[in-house]
Amino acid sequence: MTEAASRRRGRPPRTESADTRDRILNAAREEFSERGYDKTSVRGIAKAAGVDSALVHHYFGTKEQVFESAIEVAFAPALNAPEALADGPLDGVGERLTRFVFGIWENPGTRTPLLAIVRSAVNNDTAAAVFRRLVASQLLRRIAAQLDLPDAELRAELAAAQLVGTAMLRYVIKVEPLASADPEQIIRRLAPVVQGHLTGP
Amino acid sequence: MTEAASRRRGRPPRTESADTRDRILNAAREEFSERGYDKTSVRGIAKAAGVDSALVHHYFGTKEQVFESAIEVAFAPALNAPEALADGPLDGVGERLTRFVFGIWENPGTRTPLLAIVRSAVNNDTAAAVFRRLVASQLLRRIAAQLDLPDAELRAELAAAQLVGTAMLRYVIKVEPLASADPEQIIRRLAPVVQGHLTGP
Repeated sequence: MTEAASRRRGRPPRTESADTRDRILNAAREEFSERGYDKTSVRGIAKAAGVDSALVHHYFGTKEQVFESAIEVAFAPALNAPEALADGPLDGVGERLTRFVFGIWENPGTRTPLLAIVRSAVNNDTAAAVFRRLVASQLLRRIAAQLDLPDAELRAELAAAQLVGTAMLRYVIKVEPLASADPEQIIRRLAPVVQGHLTGP
Repeated sequence: MTEAASRRRGRPPRTESADTRDRILNAAREEFSERGYDKTSVRGIAKAAGVDSALVHHYFGTKEQVFESAIEVAFAPALNAPEALADGPLDGVGERLTRFVFGIWENPGTRTPLLAIVRSAVNNDTAAAVFRRLVASQLLRRIAAQLDLPDAELRAELAAAQLVGTAMLRYVIKVEPLASADPEQIIRRLAPVVQGHLTGP
């Protein structure tokens, strides 16, 4: 039985190694959030987690792999989203996806790590590759798979582009009036655009 | 007569100080492009331009002001675009704006400095403020001014968001199939969306 499985079933009691892994992942997420990919080191992560660097390497491998694992945890809800988005009629998928993305960005608890990932991905090619692999490929391809259209992947990407760009201008660059606009007002405007990309002519 | 005015009128012959200013601005653009805002120093810019740091401060002021001047030069064509975009019927403005943005990104000579600015703006709040002031406020507000609609600024920003997000995914994160798609194919899809944001119901 895997650690994850044993944790889900609640027994046997959580092993020490699972605790250590979680502690390292939390430290990694914080280090990457605060310093960005370039300035974060495995040594710094180990120090923040109160373990030896060798243990970080043992559990996760290289810095790139630690980053990927940290992102995977942060994005776990998002990576499970495509299935949730598939619930309900296809003509509501634009609004469901838009609401889902705003839900992540409007919540400070998820906005901060997401911002850190975006910053790292914009600045560092290795981090961009991880971002591409995880978020773009996994998340977007899974949305695309549900559309069942020949150009579904490009459609999903252009829909994502509208949401990514809105997030950049609203939360990162903070352009007004967009930055202070009521989320509902933005969602009302974006949902049909996202829908159009996904299922339009 | 100001330097700029004398330059425009072509006489008296270009002064040495204008040459020095240009040399500093070019050095600044390269330093900011290569290192990003955080890691660039006025001292490094001065060294690259072959002048004393005091001269950089004398002409441009603080590092933030040097950055702003360097961006202003890089964005001069873009900042003049709103007038050009206004030429022609309003129902073609979505396509004109989309083509204009793709023209900048598809040209490696303008893509590199733009990428540097985007990276700096994503990473550094001071750089973000400069970006916001110049590009967002000046460029977007001037586009909005031509729409003559009550929510024109928000419209212009959401249109820009579609283009910014597409640029991020295509040129920065390099998500496929978007990254390798024919620009004309993308323009065909985005132009009506941009148009819809700007002038739709």
